[in-house]
Amino acid sequence: MKKKELLFVWALFASLWCGAQQPTERYPLGAYEELTDTKPHDGEEVWNKMQAPVSLAWGSIDVRYPKLSIPLETKKGTTRMSAWKGERVHAQAVLWTRQALKNVQVKVGELKNGSSVIPASAVKTHFVRYVMTDELNKDGKGGCGHRPDKTQWDSSLVADVLDIAQELDVRERCSQPIWLTVWVPSDVKAGTYKSLLTVSAEGLEPLSLPFEVKVVNRTLPSPQDWKFDLDLWQNPYAVARYYQVPLWSKEHFDAMRPIMKMLANAGQKAITASIMHKPWNGQTEDHFDSMVTRIKKLDGSWEFGYAAFDKWVEFMTEDIGLKGLISCYTMIPWALNFDYYDEATNRVVFLETKPGDAAYAEYWGTFLKDFARHLREKGWFERTAISMDERPMEAMREAIKVVRAADPEFKITLAGNYHPEIEPDLYYYCIALGQKFPADVKKAREAKGQISTYYTCCSEAFPNTFTFSRPAEAVWTMVHAVAEGYDGYLRWSFNSWTADPLRDSRFRTWAAGDTYSVYPGPRSSIRFERMTEGVQVCEKIRILREEFTRKGDKGKLSRLNKMLTKFTLEALPDGRNHPEKDVNELHELLNRL
Amino acid sequence: MKKKELLFVWALFASLWCGAQQPTERYPLGAYEELTDTKPHDGEEVWNKMQAPVSLAWGSIDVRYPKLSIPLETKKGTTRMSAWKGERVHAQAVLWTRQALKNVQVKVGELKNGSSVIPASAVKTHFVRYVMTDELNKDGKGGCGHRPDKTQWDSSLVADVLDIAQELDVRERCSQPIWLTVWVPSDVKAGTYKSLLTVSAEGLEPLSLPFEVKVVNRTLPSPQDWKFDLDLWQNPYAVARYYQVPLWSKEHFDAMRPIMKMLANAGQKAITASIMHKPWNGQTEDHFDSMVTRIKKLDGSWEFGYAAFDKWVEFMTEDIGLKGLISCYTMIPWALNFDYYDEATNRVVFLETKPGDAAYAEYWGTFLKDFARHLREKGWFERTAISMDERPMEAMREAIKVVRAADPEFKITLAGNYHPEIEPDLYYYCIALGQKFPADVKKAREAKGQISTYYTCCSEAFPNTFTFSRPAEAVWTMVHAVAEGYDGYLRWSFNSWTADPLRDSRFRTWAAGDTYSVYPGPRSSIRFERMTEGVQVCEKIRILREEFTRKGDKGKLSRLNKMLTKFTLEALPDGRNHPEKDVNELHELLNRL
Repeated sequence: MKKKELLFVWALFASLWCGAQQPTERYPLGAYEELTDTKPHDGEEVWNKMQAPVSLAWGSIDVRYPKLSIPLETKKGTTRMSAWKGERVHAQAVLWTRQALKNVQVKVGELKNGSSVIPASAVKTHFVRYVMTDELNKDGKGGCGHRPDKTQWDSSLVADVLDIAQELDVRERCSQPIWLTVWVPSDVKAGTYKSLLTVSAEGLEPLSLPFEVKVVNRTLPSPQDWKFDLDLWQNPYAVARYYQVPLWSKEHFDAMRPIMKMLANAGQKAITASIMHKPWNGQTEDHFDSMVTRIKKLDGSWEFGYAAFDKWVEFMTEDIGLKGLISCYTMIPWALNFDYYDEATNRVVFLETKPGDAAYAEYWGTFLKDFARHLREKGWFERTAISMDERPMEAMREAIKVVRAADPEFKITLAGNYHPEIEPDLYYYCIALGQKFPADVKKAREAKGQISTYYTCCSEAFPNTFTFSRPAEAVWTMVHAVAEGYDGYLRWSFNSWTADPLRDSRFRTWAAGDTYSVYPGPRSSIRFERMTEGVQVCEKIRILREEFTRKGDKGKLSRLNKMLTKFTLEALPDGRNHPEKDVNELHELLNRL
Repeated sequence: MKKKELLFVWALFASLWCGAQQPTERYPLGAYEELTDTKPHDGEEVWNKMQAPVSLAWGSIDVRYPKLSIPLETKKGTTRMSAWKGERVHAQAVLWTRQALKNVQVKVGELKNGSSVIPASAVKTHFVRYVMTDELNKDGKGGCGHRPDKTQWDSSLVADVLDIAQELDVRERCSQPIWLTVWVPSDVKAGTYKSLLTVSAEGLEPLSLPFEVKVVNRTLPSPQDWKFDLDLWQNPYAVARYYQVPLWSKEHFDAMRPIMKMLANAGQKAITASIMHKPWNGQTEDHFDSMVTRIKKLDGSWEFGYAAFDKWVEFMTEDIGLKGLISCYTMIPWALNFDYYDEATNRVVFLETKPGDAAYAEYWGTFLKDFARHLREKGWFERTAISMDERPMEAMREAIKVVRAADPEFKITLAGNYHPEIEPDLYYYCIALGQKFPADVKKAREAKGQISTYYTCCSEAFPNTFTFSRPAEAVWTMVHAVAEGYDGYLRWSFNSWTADPLRDSRFRTWAAGDTYSVYPGPRSSIRFERMTEGVQVCEKIRILREEFTRKGDKGKLSRLNKMLTKFTLEALPDGRNHPEKDVNELHELLNRL
């Protein structure tokens, strides 16, 4: 038998054996089947060595447990977490079984500390589900570039999705990780709180694991009060497609509400708004479109409509609670085509023009003047920015000229390389990992109230949040911002879902998972939870620094700063070998200092 | 040498010999070269027998003279025309030459009748130019159907275009027909007016031909007062494309003005308006689009815009002088796709729905209510009709229901088969040649002020106005309307130009010339002049009938009616052999009675 045939038989076998089926529903929101795991795994003879038919133990939040093998390095005793009041902490348990289990359920009661209680409503558990991923580029240097042929990349199922199902069947010879989150209330008293995590199933004697949360006597504020500037770009168009609801309809907003609330709870500040068709040339599965309507009347005059923009901004501000920047993309798209509805022809027309052209200045200048008027009317002008991605310097300068001509007070943002030539123009400036703001520039920007952040994207092999990235990398990424003195972090994609995001995180470009970190449902992910953990860490660092500075406690300040050197650019080459260790040591310090 | 090779050499020879060149300018409006005539023609030895190197003689308006042969049946003496006051009459001369002629010009002075004069400004001459045509379907039964492969149809150059060039070079061994039109002023006195047509060229002793117009003591009213209901559908979109001007711009209207004035001078009544995208599924080179703007707002409400519609109707009414119906096509297109601009997506969306569906009733009902309001505001409601082409009965009934629900007073028109079921609903009803309104129905329609006409299209082998049709057929077509008791005639295409209309009248569907009867420039055609002649004849018949009826002159009435039997359906099978003779006899009678 040839290798290819063997693989085929293996796949067939695995499929029958562990029960994965091909997807039937196109856009599942409720129960769904994972794709087939075709990787080598523990055989029946290994599974048969289990002492009991079903086991439950604590694992690590740093590990993505393989689906078809017995989990390694688990422990049966108590798992211990530490948290500030108001902080979210997590743990991971693993259930593994050599027999099929029906209706598996997880229950966690309230946590008790004498007469003090953390209520059960503060605790969530999720079955961790498996999604198809791929790998870094062959040179190991990142995940950029097109991937038209999936067979060219090694694909495998990885544990990432935190399911919302309360009940699940688990097939024979499978591991089923369970994610536990405790969101410690702000008003509990410090001390150690104890509870049990219990797994039941049809015909199974319930299995339990004890856990504790040691609540430290410090308080993390609510996410909306965090100072860390997190910006994950939102894609409303992906939600409309996946949920099969009309764009900007009530159903659309209903679908987006819990998704965007997850984002707000992670500390998101800015609202992503698109003010043109395909600001990024339609690079995502669902391209962004204009939230602004442009009509060229028969008499040559322009009419602008803000119905979608207003609804989106109002929703994100009022319903979701984001009060930060309204980042409007973009005047300098990757394809210089600008659309409008032409009353003469009743068709959408694309104007090809570029910064510096009179037609460009007329198209954008006319719009921006009217947009400024509208924004002032809505009381949003001060929080709105005309946002750009890295483009050639000449194009950026010409675009800035047009913005300034329309309204000199418009805020402008850029996510790109560091350019001293235009730095003063940029209210919000996000530069790539590895680049730095000169110290005096950063200081001057702070003094002017300007925001300076950094971003990662497909370029980074480490740290990243691909579906195959090590979970601790998500924390490392956030802490790096603080360690390097940035005000926050930007990632271009919060929910630019693939065609079948719940089952397959691979995309036609970039390494798998690059385009989203939450799943339809909505479902969180190991990556998103750990990213949020990272933001919490950053807030805790800020609070401690403020406290130590206020108290003049140089010793503690210095211990903290020394720990942070493990998250700097200089530490990165070595740190990538043990982000888990660095993150854990940092946690330990933050809860001890 | 094989036949194909021989043909090739022949084509090459002809091209070098008679000087035709391949077109260079895409959309010529001024001077242009015709395509190459590849048909067998008189050889050099025939041309060498000419007594003088250049000849000029009168020909017949019934003949399309071949370009590369010596014209037959010409005469050197005086050509005599008869006309009513206010009537246009024409004659055709032919110049033929065995040597090349440079700067050929035609001059005609005023016509004189003693001290009475028809001024030179009433006389026009045109060089007749050659356009590529094809032929009827192989079964000889008409010209319908697709013609994707031009080589499957015999193609040839035919004389049809009446050029606007005042000066032309004529190559050796070529015929150059000259069209003469005299528009007799209404205020001249009856009598015979004489003049000369003179042809000059560089180095040529001018050649002259005498002609006379005998003005009869009757008056044809101005075209706008004609009662005959002529409806040739206008295509503004073709003009915008050929003239390369923005749709509905000043330049577009400037281009359309002389074209539409030609139409008005032929007695056109209705304005063709399109109220949806591709009312005929884009069957013409330039598809019709909606003159009405439909915007679906984010809140689900509709906004309609009439800027283009208003400009077009105002232009055709005020500038061109058409005061008849505004025929709005169509609620029942051949492809049931209805477009609108969607504020949510900023895109043009196509709604697939059909008459009888709730979505259809909502889309059209909402629009028609607003349209009625707008039309009443403009004072146009009474002259506006919702117009349909033949569709399945059920669809037409459902559409009529929607119109009536929106405004019971809306006028409705149909061009299609005769259907007694919906006949009473149709203010204007145009049926196909060969179908008849029952006598009592026609009478009832007249009493109600309803209009009843007939149409020809690609179906008719005879009579028709393809570029290869016999010129007299155009007259026959019009007279047939009167002979069969219709109120007028409809043709679906006045100026739906082909890609290269001046040089090539062949199209991807139907026999050549089906889609237009005037050329860019604008240039009239033998077909269009003779169609106008036919309408004049119909008006003269009406006037004479009214006069004879008023005077009780049953003898003359009966002679006239007897003559008209030559133009009825019953006479058609025989009449197609000699339309020229029938038309000439009718002319003679109308000018004599």
